[in-house]
Amino acid sequence: MSEFDPEPLILAAEQFARLPGIGLKTAQRLAYHILNQPEEQVEAFAEGILNARRSVKTCSVCQNFCGGEVCPICDDDSRDKRTICVVEAPKDVTAFERSGGFNGVYHVLHGLLSPINGIGPQQLKIKELMGRLTDCDEVIMATDPTVEGEATAVYLSRMIKPMGIKVTRLAYGLPAGAAIEYADDVTLQRALENRSEL
Amino acid sequence: MSEFDPEPLILAAEQFARLPGIGLKTAQRLAYHILNQPEEQVEAFAEGILNARRSVKTCSVCQNFCGGEVCPICDDDSRDKRTICVVEAPKDVTAFERSGGFNGVYHVLHGLLSPINGIGPQQLKIKELMGRLTDCDEVIMATDPTVEGEATAVYLSRMIKPMGIKVTRLAYGLPAGAAIEYADDVTLQRALENRSEL
Repeated sequence: MSEFDPEPLILAAEQFARLPGIGLKTAQRLAYHILNQPEEQVEAFAEGILNARRSVKTCSVCQNFCGGEVCPICDDDSRDKRTICVVEAPKDVTAFERSGGFNGVYHVLHGLLSPINGIGPQQLKIKELMGRLTDCDEVIMATDPTVEGEATAVYLSRMIKPMGIKVTRLAYGLPAGAAIEYADDVTLQRALENRSEL
Repeated sequence: MSEFDPEPLILAAEQFARLPGIGLKTAQRLAYHILNQPEEQVEAFAEGILNARRSVKTCSVCQNFCGGEVCPICDDDSRDKRTICVVEAPKDVTAFERSGGFNGVYHVLHGLLSPINGIGPQQLKIKELMGRLTDCDEVIMATDPTVEGEATAVYLSRMIKPMGIKVTRLAYGLPAGAAIEYADDVTLQRALENRSEL
């Protein structure tokens, strides 16, 4: 943008640029786009976003985003409440539900331990997890296979195991449809280590 | 998103997905992001965008976005009002101003002729351009070197030339710093055709 662009246009571009993954150039393009839209449409955009932020709460049990007090999964009597799958974020719940392979319940941490970014146990929903482990048989650590994901899984398992609860984690190995040729070294090593009998 | 996501969250993602260049996946990521932000910040976002749409007008002379009635460029007595550079969009004005190589004034069409997308002369600021040609020596066609850009330049020049006004267009050729090896055929052909003596 140049000095000739009106102030409100520059401010709108700055707001877009605060969104994750939106660079300055894209933000400017979006701001120009907004000016070419009918006013009702821009109002619907602003209201839709504000309404989501204001009306969506977190489930008092699993901490996933939810419209009411308790989310539909925690409220579903057919789900196995004794198996808790611990994930980083709501999007991970969506992924598991889409796969259809899990009938237990979830716990959303809303982040991973990351001392470098100042995220310690207090910033995550760990207290809430501990509070619901009284009637639990197994906790599945389903954090990403990254440094932060691993660290969080290890940290939690050290807290939970002494309570006599089984703690497991997702299997590592080749993704479905992958070519061995293009698999990275760590994945190949783990696929070898965790090989199973045919 | 799954059936378990609250309605307002899904609606917010749909609003993001209406933006150009934002796919469904990115829109969902942005909607999740919004829920994790402080409410004041989401309010500032919504207001910044609404305010831009509501307060930014177009210059009554050149049709560029502008805070008041006439934009700073059209209002600047040191600019040559007899040379009008015709561009597709406000971002093109920004590019020329950044380059610093132009001291005339602009005319923003707010689009290009594109019969396939239902954009004819009535949808562009062509009437406004014709209305300001009484005191003009030269009109520079500075539309993109694309099918629509070319068609728009040719269409306008056929209307303007009979009025006895000089109509020019931007030079075609190799961009600065380009490697001939990687130049496309059309660019190379044009660079050859428009070669100049050393």
